[in-house]
Amino acid sequence: MLHLQSESTTRWLSQVDEHLDEVLIDHAHCERKAASTAMSLMNSYTENRQLCEEMARIVEEELEHYFMVLDVLEKREIPFRRLQTGHYGRELNALCRPQEPHRAVDRLLIASLIEARSCERFRLLAEHVRPRDEELAEFYAGLFESEARHHTTYVKLAEHFADRQSVMTRLDQLSSDETAIIAKGSSLARMHS
Amino acid sequence: MLHLQSESTTRWLSQVDEHLDEVLIDHAHCERKAASTAMSLMNSYTENRQLCEEMARIVEEELEHYFMVLDVLEKREIPFRRLQTGHYGRELNALCRPQEPHRAVDRLLIASLIEARSCERFRLLAEHVRPRDEELAEFYAGLFESEARHHTTYVKLAEHFADRQSVMTRLDQLSSDETAIIAKGSSLARMHS
Repeated sequence: MLHLQSESTTRWLSQVDEHLDEVLIDHAHCERKAASTAMSLMNSYTENRQLCEEMARIVEEELEHYFMVLDVLEKREIPFRRLQTGHYGRELNALCRPQEPHRAVDRLLIASLIEARSCERFRLLAEHVRPRDEELAEFYAGLFESEARHHTTYVKLAEHFADRQSVMTRLDQLSSDETAIIAKGSSLARMHS
Repeated sequence: MLHLQSESTTRWLSQVDEHLDEVLIDHAHCERKAASTAMSLMNSYTENRQLCEEMARIVEEELEHYFMVLDVLEKREIPFRRLQTGHYGRELNALCRPQEPHRAVDRLLIASLIEARSCERFRLLAEHVRPRDEELAEFYAGLFESEARHHTTYVKLAEHFADRQSVMTRLDQLSSDETAIIAKGSSLARMHS
């Protein structure tokens, strides 16, 4: 359902254990960036009313999550700050074909894969931290449903710009690339490292 | 209260009368762009929690207005489309000083002036169209209060980046520039022509 071709590894979970504060800060940035991505898609495809309405809903939800994560940080007395950006988003976005309508398809599918990976990791994280941090576990358990829904929304919207078969073929390809990117890992502890 | 140094002229009202459809389409774009501006400020000054919260509220309100204008267009069977951008926003944004914290002050004050001009014009438009189009008059009358509020929010936030006197001096200068830009007019019929 999430169209991912790999599961997150214990390597990532160890990184989270060692740098939980940094991963939480990165998570806040991810929510804000997700809202920006949706807004940017609305700006690019403003003639498509359905897309605009779906994007507006996503903007609103992601911003709500952004403030929820900021509240978690505040409660844990973790100062919010800028972080060096990981390679995941940059490398995924570099796969975007430049010509329309391919560009629209790719932007939507890349957004769908980021949501899918977040969903997979939130679920994993919830179970991983549950034995020692029930509160954080509940927080993550409360988020992954909306990420799964956003994944589906983005994939469906891609079909406004190409037929279903082309969309699914391209999603397969991008998902395979996503798996390669995530498998490389990163020395920076991030939500998508 | 709006810190504007001029009132809109009958020249603009005549342009609106001649090209009301185009001005309505431009209005929709303006609401979407206003949401984008707020999101972009949130991205740039993400460490400032109060700014982020105010920006999130503005994003939400502007997007709500965007869909309200799209509904007005739909009801009037005016097809929504892209428009050539007027010079107003471009010329105002060119006044922004590049170095922080001046850049933050200027971005916020320029946003505040665009909101102020929109407010002034919505009010004028409401009265201008009332004799022959009560529905549109009510629509505009319902919008200008929030534009005035956004103006005030932006000016107050600028004081996070400079002392009050510097902010007010700069606002005076930018407002004088705004008056010069709007006085030039434009052959394109726009909300800010």
